[in-house]
Parts: sequence; C-alpha cells; structure tokens
Amino acid sequence: MKKIATLVAVALLNLGTATAQELSNFNFGGRGQQTKSPELNGEKVTFRLNANYATVVNLAGSWMPDQQHYGGGIPMKKGKDGVWELTIDTPTPEIYTYNFVVDGVTVNDPQNFMVQRDGTRYLNMLMVPGERTENYFEANQRGTVSYKWYDSKILGMNRRVTVYTPYGYEKNKGQKYPVLYLLHGMGGDEEAWTSMGRAAQILDNLIEKGLAKPMIVVMPNGNPNEQAAQTLGLPKSKTNYGDPLQADAYVKSLCEEIVPFIEKEFRVIAKPEARAISGLSMGGGHTFTATNLYPKMFDYICPQSAAGGSTLEQVKALKAAGVKLYFLACGTTDFLYDNSKKMDALLTEAGLEHTFFQSDGGHVWANWRLYLNTLAPKLFK
Amino acid sequence: MKKIATLVAVALLNLGTATAQELSNFNFGGRGQQTKSPELNGEKVTFRLNANYATVVNLAGSWMPDQQHYGGGIPMKKGKDGVWELTIDTPTPEIYTYNFVVDGVTVNDPQNFMVQRDGTRYLNMLMVPGERTENYFEANQRGTVSYKWYDSKILGMNRRVTVYTPYGYEKNKGQKYPVLYLLHGMGGDEEAWTSMGRAAQILDNLIEKGLAKPMIVVMPNGNPNEQAAQTLGLPKSKTNYGDPLQADAYVKSLCEEIVPFIEKEFRVIAKPEARAISGLSMGGGHTFTATNLYPKMFDYICPQSAAGGSTLEQVKALKAAGVKLYFLACGTTDFLYDNSKKMDALLTEAGLEHTFFQSDGGHVWANWRLYLNTLAPKLFK
Repeated sequence: MKKIATLVAVALLNLGTATAQELSNFNFGGRGQQTKSPELNGEKVTFRLNANYATVVNLAGSWMPDQQHYGGGIPMKKGKDGVWELTIDTPTPEIYTYNFVVDGVTVNDPQNFMVQRDGTRYLNMLMVPGERTENYFEANQRGTVSYKWYDSKILGMNRRVTVYTPYGYEKNKGQKYPVLYLLHGMGGDEEAWTSMGRAAQILDNLIEKGLAKPMIVVMPNGNPNEQAAQTLGLPKSKTNYGDPLQADAYVKSLCEEIVPFIEKEFRVIAKPEARAISGLSMGGGHTFTATNLYPKMFDYICPQSAAGGSTLEQVKALKAAGVKLYFLACGTTDFLYDNSKKMDALLTEAGLEHTFFQSDGGHVWANWRLYLNTLAPKLFK
Repeated sequence: MKKIATLVAVALLNLGTATAQELSNFNFGGRGQQTKSPELNGEKVTFRLNANYATVVNLAGSWMPDQQHYGGGIPMKKGKDGVWELTIDTPTPEIYTYNFVVDGVTVNDPQNFMVQRDGTRYLNMLMVPGERTENYFEANQRGTVSYKWYDSKILGMNRRVTVYTPYGYEKNKGQKYPVLYLLHGMGGDEEAWTSMGRAAQILDNLIEKGLAKPMIVVMPNGNPNEQAAQTLGLPKSKTNYGDPLQADAYVKSLCEEIVPFIEKEFRVIAKPEARAISGLSMGGGHTFTATNLYPKMFDYICPQSAAGGSTLEQVKALKAAGVKLYFLACGTTDFLYDNSKKMDALLTEAGLEHTFFQSDGGHVWANWRLYLNTLAPKLFK
C-alpha cells in the first residue's frame, strides 16, 4: 500500500504531469497484473504463474479427479520469461476452485482476486458461464446481506447469523416476507452459503426473473460451540455438545431463538406456511432434527445430501401437521445417497407427498447450488 | 470438502464407534493443522510452513523494512520433517500482515485463517495483543455489518455500501443515531475499513466501554467507476471520471445520494451536528472535497493522512457554517505530512479551532486504525 500510494499521490500532487490515462495504467494490485490468469477464451482456459525460481509447478482444479485437487495436479510449462503456463479445455459450465502447487506447496493464483472460503481454506474460483451457472453471477437488482448477532441463552453466547433480504425490502415498507432458513454442512459456517453457495446471487437472479417469490434467507452458524466463523478469531465454547448431527442444542436455538429473533427484527410473515427450512449434509441432518422436534414450524422442508433422518412416526407427525413441500435432494454418487433413498422410501411409506430430486455427482457445492436454484422457485407458492 | 465429509459422515453414521472426542480431533481444515503457525508465545513468535520440496523459503512481514514485504524477507530453516521454521522477537502490539516466499513465489500461510484483503491481495494477519490493539479484537457486544446497494443516478449504477449499526440498534426502536461517513483510500473499496481498518471492532469496543457514542458508520465505495469491490466480479464503468482525487462525481453521489439513502433507511438524526466525515489518503481528499462543496453538511470533519485540501476561502466558509470538531491526523514520516502541515497552517490562518494529531510512522493502516480509535470518542459530544 505504502509504495503504491506514494507513487499515486506523487502523481496526483503534480496534476500538471499526471493524466487520468496514466493513472489508469498504475498497477494498484502491486505486482504482476501483466500476467493474466485465468484467461478464459471460450473453449480454452489458460492459467499463468510468475515463478522464475520454482522447479516444478502444477495446476490442481476441482474439475480434475478428486485426488488431484489440493495437491498433485497436472504440470505447467515454464516460459523464457519465468511465467509458467498451462492451457486446458474449458470444463463444462460450473464454479470450480483451483490452486497452483509450487515445489509441493499449495499456492493461490495472485492474479485472481475471485476467492471463496471453504472453512479455513481460501480457494481461487474459476467461473465458467453457461446455462447451468447463469444465476450464479451477479444480477442487476441485488438484495442486502447482513451479519447480525443474536443472544443465545440455550448455547450461552452471542452468535452471528447471515441474513439476506431481497431487493426492494428497504422500499416496500408495507410488505412482509416469507423466510427460508438455509443451513450449512460440517466444516462450514454462517458464510458458507453466501461464499461457496452463491445464495445471494441465486436468489437475486431468481427474484429478478420472477421465478422465485421475494424472500428473506437466514443462514445461521450450525456449529454449537462457535459464536461465529473461525476467521473472526473468537474463542470456541468448551461445552461438549456431543455428536454434531444430533446437536439438539443448536436446533433448539435455531427454532426457539433464531426464528423469533428474525421474526422480530424483520418484516416477516410469522406463520408455518411462510417458513422453509433446507440444509446440506450436516445441515440436512439439522433440517431433519428441526422438523422432528418442531413438526408444526415449517411447511417447506428441503434436506440436501442429508445425513441423519426421521422415523416413520416422525414423518407421520409431519404429514398430520400439514407439509406444503417436501423436497429431498441428493447426488447419485453421493456417499449419503443410500441414506436419502431410505428417507425417500420412508416418506412414501408414510404417504407424505414429496419430490426426490436426484442429480449427477456427489457431495459437492456444484450440487448444493443446483438444489438451491431448483428448490427456491417452489417455495411459498 | 468431499473427503473430509466422507470421513466425518462415516464416523457419524456409525454412532456406536465415533465419540464427540474423536470427532473433535478430526482435521476439518483438510491438511496440516498439526503444523501450528503463527505460534505466539509472549516475546517470541514462530512461523512454520510444510514445504519439503522447496529450495528457499523466506518470511516477509509488514513489521520488516518496507522493501522486504511482499517479496524478499528473511530466510527460514528447514527441519528434518520438511517443515520450515523461523522464530523471531514478537513485534510491538499492532496488526501486521505477512506471507511466505517459496522459491520466489508469494504464499499465504495455510495454517492461518485470519486474513485481511487489501485491494486484490489477501494477506495473513498477525495480531499482537497489547494496549495499542485492545480495541482491534472482538468486543463482547457487537453491531451489525450490512452490505447494501443504492441506486446512483449521478454515477449511473447500482452501488454497494457497507453499513455498521451499533449493538442495540435492533432493540432500541425509539432511538435515532448520528452517522460517521468513513472513506477509504486509493486501491481500497467499501470493505477496506472493515477488513484492514477493524472499524466494526473499534466501534464495538469504544461503545461497549462507554467511550464513544453509539453511532452508525457508513463506508461507501469511493471509486466512481466501480459498483462494488472488484472481488464481486462486476464490470467497471468505462466513464472517465478524471483525477480520482478530484472526483466530484463520487463526492456528489456521497452527499446527494448516499446521505439521503442512509437517512431514509436507518433511524438517523438527519442534522449537521449528527453527521461526521472522515477518510484516509484519497478518502481524506474526498473529505476535503465534500466539505468544500457542502460546507453546511458535516459538523465533524476528520481528514486522515489526506491528499488534496481546501482554500482559505473554503475554510472560512466552513468556519461560518459552524464546525464542532476539525481533527486533522497524519504520521510524521508520511509522504503527505507536508500536505497536512499546510492544511494545519491554513486552518490556523482562518481561525478555525482544530486538532492536528501527529503520530509516528507513515501512510499505513496502523495509523488509520489509531486515528479512528482516537477520533471516534470525540464525535457527537
């Protein structure tokens, strides 16, 4: 910052000599913006890294077979200028993550400031445009994302929750909104759905296109020993909440503290028919637990690639309470596919009308973005 | 995520064999959490990097002489286990940034998930506790940080603005709040003050201690050709707004669009005595421009390490309008120190009561955090 600012300010203070054109050529990033990476040219994409003194540089991307990601990868070639380069066929439209491996060390692409956070890892993004991803890019009309804190007596701490309010929320003072409670998986936190999941962009696009009803989306932290994402540096609670999948304490906080907090703080339709719950993996388990413990609370229930489940009795209680949508989603190669198939059979046995949405692929964000994009238009209608 | 989730879920689905204790030992981060870095032990701090195949590994930190940061640095030593290590004397309390340099390539510390973003760079943080930094850590009572969008007719786009509302804002429905407009410097964006500047933590702590009045802090994007931080991937406007320091179009949008937007959306005391403006470097220039163009708008004016300035006539207009606080701050080794001295002399010449707060050091975030921590308690009193 210092050196750059010096250069710029010296230029600015000598207005006679520095033009806007010259300023626009300043390298604000600090280094190497000449080296473009990744460079997406239709069917080909090129990655580059300036690493004149490295011996081996590989590219590792999430589109490669799993064992090559976060290590391994495929070799890049060094040019005369010390820039390593690799051009590959553009993978099919999706949001991928990738990194370089420089002499065995995982390195982010310094030219690419599009970054997602997955738990404690910061990962470069490669966004390939196409029909599948069109709702993952920024819409024209965008909602507000807020990081709020609620006091949890159940968990004994002040906890962070991410809240999305749709475009127009600020202006339409007379309007009340339905709410989707959207839960992350293990290793995630209250930023997982907005970072890896592109939840704000997906809702913005669906709402702008008139495909989804304007709704509020609430994304809590599902780790009962955490106040907030680890990246905030807050100490963790030493209370042992036991098996995270059975974390009743968190689910109780969700239903008895977060839901009332949201319904007080926002203009919300505080009724079961305006409440939806969905979660991935562990968050799917939390979805089951919440609907098992509070069968009358949510009329829209959407477990994704979910662990855990419900008993026949619990499903019957849900049916008696009246469910407007039960949308179960899982990838056919997901290690939890059998778990979802069992749940599908149980729902059928209980006579609860439902959708079992099956997609290619496994336990990955590509699927969870797809599920959110698919289920959101079905809510509150 | 996939492999970790597999491990965890397999454990969870076999509840008879996996205990909470076993789960708590899972490596959710995915790799190498055995290698602790940085490890702060009072007067010493140790950095470690697992890099068995690297030839040379250096540590580069912002506490080192400037030319060693973002490259260069001081050599680390490789242990038998392939982990490079370096122990240094802990620098004086402050928030520092650092990185490793592996065979000439800048690498973030994979063990350290405390990360700041400076423009397009993601930088690891080293937070050294002490009196100087006590307000930079999380407080017990925290406000809300929101990312909102306002429509700018002046700049012809929908633009992102970061808004901090203090703890209690949601509960105290009858209360109206004063507002600090807090502006970033060149290379920054609407997240600079919350990321590098720790603005939310500083205000949380000051308010919790009763040292500052509860206030709203508004942090806009000061680059007139941007809708939002570059990390959102939105296209930039091709309009040439000329010299960014003289960017009247942005300052007009701030005073004629952002201020009314905030005063409509939030419970705000919409009067000059409840409006403060402060900014660093280019944002200090914007502070001058805003008070030059709208002398009656802000009663509290705090340029930090500022570029640009005002004329004697403009300062006299400010004096006539009635200023409650004029707080000018600059580091004595800042390349803009002379500019601040000139402004100090001009304020004296105009007979405008003011403070010229001078600190050690230069054009760095260490100073801007200090200035915010120093000026916020003086506002709205």
